[in-house]
Amino acid sequence: MPGFLELGFAKVDVGRLERRGFPEVALGEGKSPDDLAQILKALVEKNGVALATRAGSHHFDKVTEVLPDARFELAARCIVIERKPLPRLAGKVAVVSAGTTDWPVVEEVRVTLELFGNSVDIIQDVGVAGIERTLAARDRIESCSVAIVVAGMDGALPSVIAGLVSTPVIAVPTSVGYGASFGGIAALLSMLNSCASGVTVVNIDNGFGAAYAASLINREIAVSTPSP
Amino acid sequence: MPGFLELGFAKVDVGRLERRGFPEVALGEGKSPDDLAQILKALVEKNGVALATRAGSHHFDKVTEVLPDARFELAARCIVIERKPLPRLAGKVAVVSAGTTDWPVVEEVRVTLELFGNSVDIIQDVGVAGIERTLAARDRIESCSVAIVVAGMDGALPSVIAGLVSTPVIAVPTSVGYGASFGGIAALLSMLNSCASGVTVVNIDNGFGAAYAASLINREIAVSTPSP
Amino acid sequence: MPGFLELGFAKVDVGRLERRGFPEVALGEGKSPDDLAQILKALVEKNGVALATRAGSHHFDKVTEVLPDARFELAARCIVIERKPLPRLAGKVAVVSAGTTDWPVVEEVRVTLELFGNSVDIIQDVGVAGIERTLAARDRIESCSVAIVVAGMDGALPSVIAGLVSTPVIAVPTSVGYGASFGGIAALLSMLNSCASGVTVVNIDNGFGAAYAASLINREIAVSTPSP
Amino acid sequence: MPGFLELGFAKVDVGRLERRGFPEVALGEGKSPDDLAQILKALVEKNGVALATRAGSHHFDKVTEVLPDARFELAARCIVIERKPLPRLAGKVAVVSAGTTDWPVVEEVRVTLELFGNSVDIIQDVGVAGIERTLAARDRIESCSVAIVVAGMDGALPSVIAGLVSTPVIAVPTSVGYGASFGGIAALLSMLNSCASGVTVVNIDNGFGAAYAASLINREIAVSTPSP
Amino acid sequence: MPGFLELGFAKVDVGRLERRGFPEVALGEGKSPDDLAQILKALVEKNGVALATRAGSHHFDKVTEVLPDARFELAARCIVIERKPLPRLAGKVAVVSAGTTDWPVVEEVRVTLELFGNSVDIIQDVGVAGIERTLAARDRIESCSVAIVVAGMDGALPSVIAGLVSTPVIAVPTSVGYGASFGGIAALLSMLNSCASGVTVVNIDNGFGAAYAASLINREIAVSTPSP
Amino acid sequence: MPGFLELGFAKVDVGRLERRGFPEVALGEGKSPDDLAQILKALVEKNGVALATRAGSHHFDKVTEVLPDARFELAARCIVIERKPLPRLAGKVAVVSAGTTDWPVVEEVRVTLELFGNSVDIIQDVGVAGIERTLAARDRIESCSVAIVVAGMDGALPSVIAGLVSTPVIAVPTSVGYGASFGGIAALLSMLNSCASGVTVVNIDNGFGAAYAASLINREIAVSTPSP
Amino acid sequence: MPGFLELGFAKVDVGRLERRGFPEVALGEGKSPDDLAQILKALVEKNGVALATRAGSHHFDKVTEVLPDARFELAARCIVIERKPLPRLAGKVAVVSAGTTDWPVVEEVRVTLELFGNSVDIIQDVGVAGIERTLAARDRIESCSVAIVVAGMDGALPSVIAGLVSTPVIAVPTSVGYGASFGGIAALLSMLNSCASGVTVVNIDNGFGAAYAASLINREIAVSTPSP
Amino acid sequence: MPGFLELGFAKVDVGRLERRGFPEVALGEGKSPDDLAQILKALVEKNGVALATRAGSHHFDKVTEVLPDARFELAARCIVIERKPLPRLAGKVAVVSAGTTDWPVVEEVRVTLELFGNSVDIIQDVGVAGIERTLAARDRIESCSVAIVVAGMDGALPSVIAGLVSTPVIAVPTSVGYGASFGGIAALLSMLNSCASGVTVVNIDNGFGAAYAASLINREIAVSTPSP
Repeated sequence: MPGFLELGFAKVDVGRLERRGFPEVALGEGKSPDDLAQILKALVEKNGVALATRAGSHHFDKVTEVLPDARFELAARCIVIERKPLPRLAGKVAVVSAGTTDWPVVEEVRVTLELFGNSVDIIQDVGVAGIERTLAARDRIESCSVAIVVAGMDGALPSVIAGLVSTPVIAVPTSVGYGASFGGIAALLSMLNSCASGVTVVNIDNGFGAAYAASLINREIAVSTPSP
Repeated sequence: MPGFLELGFAKVDVGRLERRGFPEVALGEGKSPDDLAQILKALVEKNGVALATRAGSHHFDKVTEVLPDARFELAARCIVIERKPLPRLAGKVAVVSAGTTDWPVVEEVRVTLELFGNSVDIIQDVGVAGIERTLAARDRIESCSVAIVVAGMDGALPSVIAGLVSTPVIAVPTSVGYGASFGGIAALLSMLNSCASGVTVVNIDNGFGAAYAASLINREIAVSTPSP
Repeated sequence: MPGFLELGFAKVDVGRLERRGFPEVALGEGKSPDDLAQILKALVEKNGVALATRAGSHHFDKVTEVLPDARFELAARCIVIERKPLPRLAGKVAVVSAGTTDWPVVEEVRVTLELFGNSVDIIQDVGVAGIERTLAARDRIESCSVAIVVAGMDGALPSVIAGLVSTPVIAVPTSVGYGASFGGIAALLSMLNSCASGVTVVNIDNGFGAAYAASLINREIAVSTPSP
Repeated sequence: MPGFLELGFAKVDVGRLERRGFPEVALGEGKSPDDLAQILKALVEKNGVALATRAGSHHFDKVTEVLPDARFELAARCIVIERKPLPRLAGKVAVVSAGTTDWPVVEEVRVTLELFGNSVDIIQDVGVAGIERTLAARDRIESCSVAIVVAGMDGALPSVIAGLVSTPVIAVPTSVGYGASFGGIAALLSMLNSCASGVTVVNIDNGFGAAYAASLINREIAVSTPSP
Repeated sequence: MPGFLELGFAKVDVGRLERRGFPEVALGEGKSPDDLAQILKALVEKNGVALATRAGSHHFDKVTEVLPDARFELAARCIVIERKPLPRLAGKVAVVSAGTTDWPVVEEVRVTLELFGNSVDIIQDVGVAGIERTLAARDRIESCSVAIVVAGMDGALPSVIAGLVSTPVIAVPTSVGYGASFGGIAALLSMLNSCASGVTVVNIDNGFGAAYAASLINREIAVSTPSP
Repeated sequence: MPGFLELGFAKVDVGRLERRGFPEVALGEGKSPDDLAQILKALVEKNGVALATRAGSHHFDKVTEVLPDARFELAARCIVIERKPLPRLAGKVAVVSAGTTDWPVVEEVRVTLELFGNSVDIIQDVGVAGIERTLAARDRIESCSVAIVVAGMDGALPSVIAGLVSTPVIAVPTSVGYGASFGGIAALLSMLNSCASGVTVVNIDNGFGAAYAASLINREIAVSTPSP
Repeated sequence: MPGFLELGFAKVDVGRLERRGFPEVALGEGKSPDDLAQILKALVEKNGVALATRAGSHHFDKVTEVLPDARFELAARCIVIERKPLPRLAGKVAVVSAGTTDWPVVEEVRVTLELFGNSVDIIQDVGVAGIERTLAARDRIESCSVAIVVAGMDGALPSVIAGLVSTPVIAVPTSVGYGASFGGIAALLSMLNSCASGVTVVNIDNGFGAAYAASLINREIAVSTPSP
Repeated sequence: MPGFLELGFAKVDVGRLERRGFPEVALGEGKSPDDLAQILKALVEKNGVALATRAGSHHFDKVTEVLPDARFELAARCIVIERKPLPRLAGKVAVVSAGTTDWPVVEEVRVTLELFGNSVDIIQDVGVAGIERTLAARDRIESCSVAIVVAGMDGALPSVIAGLVSTPVIAVPTSVGYGASFGGIAALLSMLNSCASGVTVVNIDNGFGAAYAASLINREIAVSTPSP
């Protein structure tokens, strides 16, 4: 038995849940609604859950014909089907944003984390221009097993937060900004050069990727913790 | 009591070990040997260990005058003083490289990981142009709690490895290559756009940063695991 | 007799089929429908076939008035007229894609290859995040005389495939991706820096160019092979 | 009478002190020692003071032949001649750095500020990875009339400081860092996109330019303040 | 009492007016109209004034429901509410533009400056291709306490103006231009490399930021000037 | 008497015709139709002719109300008013394009050249992929006093042409192309690095600028040539 | 039996000759002389031949101790050991350069091609600024089965040559040039955007890669050609 | 008889003087001294003059063995042999620089212009930060038939000069500057986007290219001017 399902136009990686602990997820953008629906159908039948990111309403209209129990998370641009929830994980993941405009990326993070069995603590709009807001978030972040920090413009927030806590920090640059923010490049470079050691970074606006990485870490902790 | 030690030309962050679980580390490059020696002295007196990265022999000559127990890790370009070792961590960290030329970065990763109490499993030269080498490394990586994957040129290795295992993968692009590798940009971009979900990335040649992040994750697991 | 046909606004290179073995092809984008129709008319009358790439329906509406036997390959964005097919070539060309979203580029490759007399074997969605899919494609690729490998995002697929086979590999980066993929630059750089020796590369999304190069190679083989 | 002095190979802008309130300053880099010496001689004879930035010891050796009262500020790479000091200004300028490695730029700032009549308060190594250091500097900065904030790597410091004080902040990105810091571009972009309103920015490593701008502002205040 | 107001989706920095002398301002772009209205309401209730930049008519329609005294500055893309004007400042700010096409940025500068209590002198279209226009503006600029110079394309204007006057110059690159102006990068780089010492620069099209910085400087002068 | 006309929102450089030999020309893009109309009116009243480049039909609709004798050159995107033609120049200018898609830029060149009194010889679609077309154009180009060579994609045409003739060559890169043409950057760089000595270059798609430069050269020749 | 040989610091891909038709080749740059010598020894013992590219004399001094029959190709920077020559291939490969300065890259191409069993025809200095030189090379190129075209600066040569012949063209951009050639980027982009269809491209200065690709193609032809 | 001379390693374009009016010139950089000497010998024997740019003393030492009448222009980095001077041209060329540091480029311009028969008027250090210097140069520039304007940093000088005169202006960006000047990119972009119409641009530091273009223009004028 091969580790993938042949659909002709696609080869669905149905072995991924077993190999990696979390299932394959479909990128909606650039796929035809028909193709996306077929792929999600194959995934949910194999894994009990399915997720499409960067999906539009034209995708959802077709998916819902084939999978009536799909739901559309509008702000997150995600289509979710959850028939047999994935195992709940012990640790909590903090999701911290620098500004209200980063909200769609925060939503993509939240939807992915929740589908993957994580508890989530969302702390929004704690940008360093009003540093009291940042400092006030410290204890909530410290109590989590991973923190995802979302910021555009100068991308300075992860440097400050990572300096405050012992929690591993995954930074997500966003395309929020204009001019010399270059669609998120300024934030991305700032994060890659963080003066606070140990910050790791994902692609611009890639809330999903950060959530996937956080889930891998969170699950690793769960796996290591013997149930009493 | 302030969380830092005032040296005039520097403010040593002696509170970092307590806040973050691992101590401040000094970047040698660009510092005068005298300044570096004073900073390392302050750090080792407070923390029991001290580390300088990107250090040269001109740095080491001066440091060893002040701290005779310092040792120079030549390939890693690190100065290490270890008087009171940091606590040993339970999990193991895999360090995987794409080619033999990535070796100096691998060394910086190893020195940092070991000083920070991690067990390390080094697997070198498993580039995807001879994919059997990559596949043969799978089980060793899967048995670790974190994997650091080091690659220059096309930066393709993290994508393949992350697709094979449930271990969180931290990718380190290196400046190995020429022409349109642009000093590691090609590898960096490739890793940020990995088709394997959940890869996180650090700065080009930043072996230290990857090791710091892996240590944070590994310690999180240790912290979560009740000792019997 | 000059090697080109003067249309005033254009000089059609009607000598190209003789010089290069394959005819001039028109880029639709940026041409007025009228001009494109006139150019295709000149080409088909001289060569028996004609092809426009990156064409829209506004182009096709006008072309079909002048050349009623034109057909529109929608996904490939190509207009094709084939009155006197070009000679069939002996070798087969593999067309391999990393993901379903690369499909429009795959289509441009296919349409061009078929018009130019090649047999084509299309193998879609074999991205390296599920490496079993990639490995399973090996024998089909090895049996072809050239392989065109199409990938966006991290552009890692050509490195893995070129390491597996003795077939010459032409890599096509696509603009699939977002953020730091920079419209295909990440994939392009990855391919130019492939750790697998001998990969050659064409412009982002340039399926046509890859197919033209593959046809030149395939024809070279055909020319060298004495018919029994 | 023209506003400049014709030296043949140069036209010294001796009218600048009158027009702008501060004299022309020579960039040493790229000038021959002979030319630099002649230019400085013309400037000091007209203005009573002269300054060359980015100068080397080969410059100083020649300058000191012509102007024996010249002094070489090694760390700042500046040659200074001060026969008739410029008027002292009332306000104080804060010079704040993120790390010890930014020291040469801080020195160029200090030398320029002092020559131009400013009082200077230097606060070094207050990077945001140990935020207590940054917060502890607040009152000293607030008491100054302008603040120059010098930082490399992620360039995050100006965002935090500008959020804390009512003092105008001029940010100087430095080339401190490696890999994706791209010789200071990461810090520059971060500063241009500061989430704290009103940060203005100068060129990478341009300590002199920041000091010139700060002097213009400080003098504007002095000019506006009636002496009792 | 915390320095910020918790709205759940946002943490309004109501302490900023006290800390920095000028209130927090909301970036409209990327915010939902509802969120923007709530934020402006909180700001005006605390500070007596409120400003949103980069706002659209969809924002204004909602804001005006909640805050009927809001006004929309169309060209500046600003929403302004001014119930209790901020203190008038003594100094005047010159706003100088290189061409008529820079007008929207000039407007954003003007609206911000006036709300923040500055007197404003606007001098438009004095680009250096007709240098007489530039020279004619000299005296008006010299009489101001700060000058904001707005230019796209070659960004040459700040270099010429800063060479003429003793007024501090803040340069605003605009995205006016095409081709190799790269959306304002050419002007930005030109300004960062100004041959006239002491020019400071803000982000491309960031009229608001320049006005905020100018206000900080202008207020510093006012603060330093004892009222008779 | 000043050399410019004050319109409040603009300062029209009515002295330019006298200073430079050719009048000021207005850039339509980014100007309001009203402003453009006023500027053109001022220019035509002073100079007898007026030109706006990069203009749209919304501009023309307004301009034609104020200046009924204006004409719209659609492909060139130019508005032209010509009441008192400028003096005819003796020399001829060759305008050579690499492909039919470069046509709009060629049109902008032609309209400007003709308004400025030049004779024009247009030679289209002589791209080097069919080198016979290029070689066939040699004599016509050689007989002109200046050549403007317009090309996108690889920008190779100016190198070949400049190698063939003694005519000065001004190269205009166009944004024709896709992917790694980066909106004309590939062609621009190619032209700046031309292996044929003496090629000069203007901005991407800047047909107007090339025509202005060619007119200056052509007029220089005319001026030097004594009429019999 | 695995397809690779474990050396600890390296995993030599000794199965590559069988899989790909040509052996693994070592990149000298960045490897220690000891490591390189061990790797070459393993390769020559397995394959009968071995090649290191981008090697220096410090490499060769060590290699020759271990492998006394090694030879150093100075201009090509290659170390070659050839005990049991690879099979001779039927087709010939043309190597064409734009200028004499491209010579080191031409040498790397030649050394690789000859070791891999190809006949080689080298045609140097046929840059398009003297197009007669280019045209004169046509017949020699047409008679080869593949052409490698090497050019720096404007990278225009492959476009002209590919337009002249039916031979597949592999373009090698070189770092020859200065200023806006950006170390070969101008030539690389020009080649990726070639107006002549079917040009494929390798990395800047990657003569080896082009030769490897050409060998794969040439061998494909040989394989397809029945020996009489 | 072919238009080039075959040297084996080079094909000297001895027909260029006849085709273009000025001879082929050799780029020294990257050529071996032997090769350069052979090429210069061939050129001087054919043309009576020869020029190598970007040459070093190692080149000159070898050239002078073969051609004892060669002279080395050190600052310009040029080797010149002038046995039979080229015809003197009627017009004069102005060479204008923004700062003393641009001097080596000015020298390359001067050496080329003089060898090619032009009269030269050099006006140095007229940067716009002291605009009186620029304005004072106007009449000298206006009296020339072409102006070459050399500037680094902000590259603003050509915009001001081109606005003042009717002389055609060729702009040469130099690599003078640091940080965000990016080796001359800032100046290059500024010049390409000049607000003064009709400025044409050559590669960074390409004094030779500007001089070649100016000579073509100057000769065009001479050719058109009947001698009395």
